[in-house]
Amino acid sequence: MKALPESDRTKLKRSPKRACFDRERLYEIFDEAHVVHVGFSTNEQPYVIPMLGWRVDNQLYIHGSNGSRMIKALRDGTGCCVTATLLDGMVLSKSAFHHSANYRSAVVFGSFRAVNDPEEIESSLYRFLEHIAPGRWDEVRPPSEQELKATTILAIELEEASVKIRTGPAQEADGDEVLPVWTGEMRIRQQVREMVADENANVSEAPDYSGAWKERREVEKE
Amino acid sequence: MKALPESDRTKLKRSPKRACFDRERLYEIFDEAHVVHVGFSTNEQPYVIPMLGWRVDNQLYIHGSNGSRMIKALRDGTGCCVTATLLDGMVLSKSAFHHSANYRSAVVFGSFRAVNDPEEIESSLYRFLEHIAPGRWDEVRPPSEQELKATTILAIELEEASVKIRTGPAQEADGDEVLPVWTGEMRIRQQVREMVADENANVSEAPDYSGAWKERREVEKE
Repeated sequence: MKALPESDRTKLKRSPKRACFDRERLYEIFDEAHVVHVGFSTNEQPYVIPMLGWRVDNQLYIHGSNGSRMIKALRDGTGCCVTATLLDGMVLSKSAFHHSANYRSAVVFGSFRAVNDPEEIESSLYRFLEHIAPGRWDEVRPPSEQELKATTILAIELEEASVKIRTGPAQEADGDEVLPVWTGEMRIRQQVREMVADENANVSEAPDYSGAWKERREVEKE
Repeated sequence: MKALPESDRTKLKRSPKRACFDRERLYEIFDEAHVVHVGFSTNEQPYVIPMLGWRVDNQLYIHGSNGSRMIKALRDGTGCCVTATLLDGMVLSKSAFHHSANYRSAVVFGSFRAVNDPEEIESSLYRFLEHIAPGRWDEVRPPSEQELKATTILAIELEEASVKIRTGPAQEADGDEVLPVWTGEMRIRQQVREMVADENANVSEAPDYSGAWKERREVEKE
């Protein structure tokens, strides 16, 4: 896959060795995160709003109610920054200062476009549900025309984008290696824990969608 | 505890029943999230940067390298928005449209101040490490003067802040209740999974810090 282009906005000035312009890693992070944080300004006031985000090819989608202030601002082409972050673990060092975090984060700059094509609307909603609960689309009532009209779907191209990744052990200060302190990584994971049925879940067996929320894969050491 | 004041920026125009101005819930969300997303603009370009964040009383702290562009912008008092989000579960409905997410999110508006007082610097770093790994401060080498000088600590007052919470089952459309589809909540959890020792972890038994990353508490139904 073609590497992501480097721009003034995506170039890392600090810790450039954590930078990555690999499109597959970018996709992986947005796919695994499910939640993205959308940043934009109105009247010079920055806002950061959590949204469910899902990727189809080189586009990241979000959706919301037509009346939402954020959706209105974004559909007008307001410049924004969308970030997804996976905390993989805490890096425990022998000194207070050298503690760190292992993480993967993805950032895309640009602006959203409103998705108006009925085919793209339906296919992106299908992919949204598949991303959360594979196979469920065929089991549930499909959206009515009225429901589709109440929803705005927005897409942003994953082009001016970058990835930051930290893996591996702590970087100890010279001489600290011999201190009698345990060091290593405390791994953090997000996963599906249980399926809690509603009162009107008139089907006794809960489906298994955990594949879409699989435990984060092991990230290779540096 | 005194409720958070409602402002033009924190007032929810959509779904006001999800809004909450309870300080304890705000604290809980920032405490549990560990990661915050900091949004700010420079030259009208919005940025959203993930940071480790920790709370002490009514202040939220972050830290970074003196040379970081973001730290420089924020310490100059740039207006920002800091958001923490906990995805508690996916709400599976009988119709595609009524799927939703259960979550808790906290937002604070304002600007950071640089922490310059040596006592506040040390006590906030102590609280930072305690927040990640309780008891560890006393086991590791404390920060040297040089290390302290290389770090900038920033604090923001949790005053113009608000909380959004969604809990409970799907709101089905009239008539959908009887459809033969399983409905309920797919609960998502973030937790410590394992302690992976470094090569130079010259203490055999890994400490247990999982208390600081305890499984998310059950959120009461609406």
